[in-house]
Amino acid sequence: MRDILIIGAGRSASSLIQYLLNKSEAENLHLTIGDLSLELAQRKTNGHKNATPIALDIFDQIQRTTEIQKADIVISMLPAHLHIEVAKDCIVYKKHMVTASYVSDAMQSLDAAAKENGLIFMNEIGLDPGIDHMSAMKIIDEIREKGGKMLLFESFCGGLVAPESDNNLWNYKFTWAPRNVVLAGQGGAAKFIQEGTYKYIPYPKLFRRTEFLEVEGYGRFEGYANRDSLKYRSVYGLDDVLTLYRGTIRRVGYSKAWNMFVQLGMTDDTYVIDDSEHITYREFTNLFLPYHPTDSVEIKLRMQLGIDQDDIMWDKLLELDIFNPRKIVGLKHATPAQILEKILTDSWTLQPDDKDMIVMYHKFGYEIDGKQKQIDSKMVCIGDDQTYTAMAKTVGLPVAMATLQILNGNIKTPGVQLPINKEVYLPILKELEEYGVVFNEKETSYFGYNPDKLL
Amino acid sequence: MRDILIIGAGRSASSLIQYLLNKSEAENLHLTIGDLSLELAQRKTNGHKNATPIALDIFDQIQRTTEIQKADIVISMLPAHLHIEVAKDCIVYKKHMVTASYVSDAMQSLDAAAKENGLIFMNEIGLDPGIDHMSAMKIIDEIREKGGKMLLFESFCGGLVAPESDNNLWNYKFTWAPRNVVLAGQGGAAKFIQEGTYKYIPYPKLFRRTEFLEVEGYGRFEGYANRDSLKYRSVYGLDDVLTLYRGTIRRVGYSKAWNMFVQLGMTDDTYVIDDSEHITYREFTNLFLPYHPTDSVEIKLRMQLGIDQDDIMWDKLLELDIFNPRKIVGLKHATPAQILEKILTDSWTLQPDDKDMIVMYHKFGYEIDGKQKQIDSKMVCIGDDQTYTAMAKTVGLPVAMATLQILNGNIKTPGVQLPINKEVYLPILKELEEYGVVFNEKETSYFGYNPDKLL
Repeated sequence: MRDILIIGAGRSASSLIQYLLNKSEAENLHLTIGDLSLELAQRKTNGHKNATPIALDIFDQIQRTTEIQKADIVISMLPAHLHIEVAKDCIVYKKHMVTASYVSDAMQSLDAAAKENGLIFMNEIGLDPGIDHMSAMKIIDEIREKGGKMLLFESFCGGLVAPESDNNLWNYKFTWAPRNVVLAGQGGAAKFIQEGTYKYIPYPKLFRRTEFLEVEGYGRFEGYANRDSLKYRSVYGLDDVLTLYRGTIRRVGYSKAWNMFVQLGMTDDTYVIDDSEHITYREFTNLFLPYHPTDSVEIKLRMQLGIDQDDIMWDKLLELDIFNPRKIVGLKHATPAQILEKILTDSWTLQPDDKDMIVMYHKFGYEIDGKQKQIDSKMVCIGDDQTYTAMAKTVGLPVAMATLQILNGNIKTPGVQLPINKEVYLPILKELEEYGVVFNEKETSYFGYNPDKLL
Repeated sequence: MRDILIIGAGRSASSLIQYLLNKSEAENLHLTIGDLSLELAQRKTNGHKNATPIALDIFDQIQRTTEIQKADIVISMLPAHLHIEVAKDCIVYKKHMVTASYVSDAMQSLDAAAKENGLIFMNEIGLDPGIDHMSAMKIIDEIREKGGKMLLFESFCGGLVAPESDNNLWNYKFTWAPRNVVLAGQGGAAKFIQEGTYKYIPYPKLFRRTEFLEVEGYGRFEGYANRDSLKYRSVYGLDDVLTLYRGTIRRVGYSKAWNMFVQLGMTDDTYVIDDSEHITYREFTNLFLPYHPTDSVEIKLRMQLGIDQDDIMWDKLLELDIFNPRKIVGLKHATPAQILEKILTDSWTLQPDDKDMIVMYHKFGYEIDGKQKQIDSKMVCIGDDQTYTAMAKTVGLPVAMATLQILNGNIKTPGVQLPINKEVYLPILKELEEYGVVFNEKETSYFGYNPDKLL
């Protein structure tokens, strides 16, 4: 039996564990599933004979190193900042390691030691980062192999509510960490390259400069720019590309409405609201509006944001109940962002029968034989239920597949890795298709940002 | 002879030194004026027989302690974060100390030691902080002494260009650190209390929620909110006041125009612009605008900010030359804020014959014998020239006066102090009048924020 140690049995581990348990007979696998909560680890193994759930405290060094020594490979589904101690142990005890997280500087610093010991530390092999790397590099490599030169790469991804569960005016529910949704775009301008020039969008304008995206069978979406679109410029070999843009997908209209919170100041996480525990939703809203002896909070907000009474923006605010004079915030020493998160959670929490949806959209512009062409590659994945969500599938399955490929010796390159090489992305993208993660690629004409060749 | 050590001979020390030299015969004073630049110290003493200019490096501990030991009192005009080493020496060698800076936590921590040794560490006795404390506390104390109850305190201050030198569309030139002007209002919401409710204005709205201020003989000004209006709530004894607001004064229209830079993202100081050294002013402006193959930078900016061609906002931008395709930024690794500061410095630098102006405006609302009343107190000070500026006078003279009052035993209370007590503010405000720093107080009816008693 080959022993796989999985650390962390939370939401994103469901499909990962299910996949490996399903393969455990044929592939001779035993899983040790460790979580701070034994109950959670037990629930995820569901009594399977090839799995051992354990209570695992990764801050207990003896227990942690004992479990790592027993394993052939370690999967860490911990929060990103907690991987590093596990990774150091994996160097000491010569174990491969897989995570779905961004490579931290600390992780990167283990590259030489990993290579020396012939160990594969595969990171960023979830959804985003993960499936985005793989599906992008597959097409970029194909274009290069046939002699094309990349001109443009745009990549969008979003976690949304599935169409069958989409029943609010925002066309949105929280399918992942709500806090990240509230803070999205903060901490500097969004940076990208468009037709050879750098562009920076400051936070107050971020949600007003969106792009439309059409996905056949699913309708229209919009994308707003991520903080740093240039992060993978060199990694992807796109240093000379004219346009490089990464964005987040929402349903059309979300960004325009979200911008209301940005303009009001409700997404600020840098200071604490006085007496936040006892104020009402209505009082919270009024904090950001000028004082007036008689004008209502409603009319002041409409005035401040320029919202006509028949504007759908208004209905979106009403739906969230932000003018309610009876609902109490009930959070001590809370920032505006924390209070807004609470208000949104009231309305945007997935209900037991709700399903989530992942949408990914890449555009590749390139030149070949003097002609400019474009490939659009799109993927939509719908969750099965609240356990095997689209998010859990798209994050967990590539991690599980990579783990098995490493164990079976098909992924061979040692060191701290991203899934940008063929030996990784080809088998995994192919296998993902069996699980409904299918990219539809379509060749179109390349328009760039000057389709009509205006001068 | 009583020896006064003045550390730092920069811009704000001119009037301070002049005052003390003028009094040196009658008051038996000798000044030691230390600056990193001996030449600067010499220029400020101008060969006066009662002054010794020296080159002083405050990081040279032996030299620093030697000079402090020789003095009877020490004035530190260093940047605020450098006071603390001087202050510690003053405890060791039992010297009084005076600064115009905000009391830091480090300074405050010396309070017990100062009291134990009978030492006066007088701080925040410049303009703002300084004259604002004194002129406010004088009226607040008067209101209380006649049995009034404070309802409202609003306080505004601004460093501007004098009317005779006011010749640009912004009605503004840099009279103090330009960097602080560019970064004004950043780092959290502006916080204040209005009619008993907390109010928070986020940075993107800060320059759109201004108040008008009329100053007889000088016309109309506007004020935008400072970051923390509540800082002195308890110090002033205003814990129960209904309205507490502090603001910065500009000429009307400045804030609306400044908001264009905020909306574009040009005031951001949190990230560095790629290749900032070689881009032109025009390219800098274009960084913040969407790409378009043919639309000009001008039309894109007008579109983005909604500026009609006959809008004065447009002329204000043209005046700053931000569309110039030949002027090069020339700053390495510069943030947007640093580049904007450079562009503004081209236009907003005081010319040799220009004069500056300080405007201060307080409003005191109170209730007495069942009646609501208000006192408005206003001060305007114009600079003499580029050495004895209004800023140098209003910052330096109170420091110099306090120093002399301490030496003469008229200010007696030991410890880390602010000028909020009568023994300090009464003689100094009175003497300041001889130097043209005069507050005009006028009693009016109290309107608060509900003048018409609307319900």
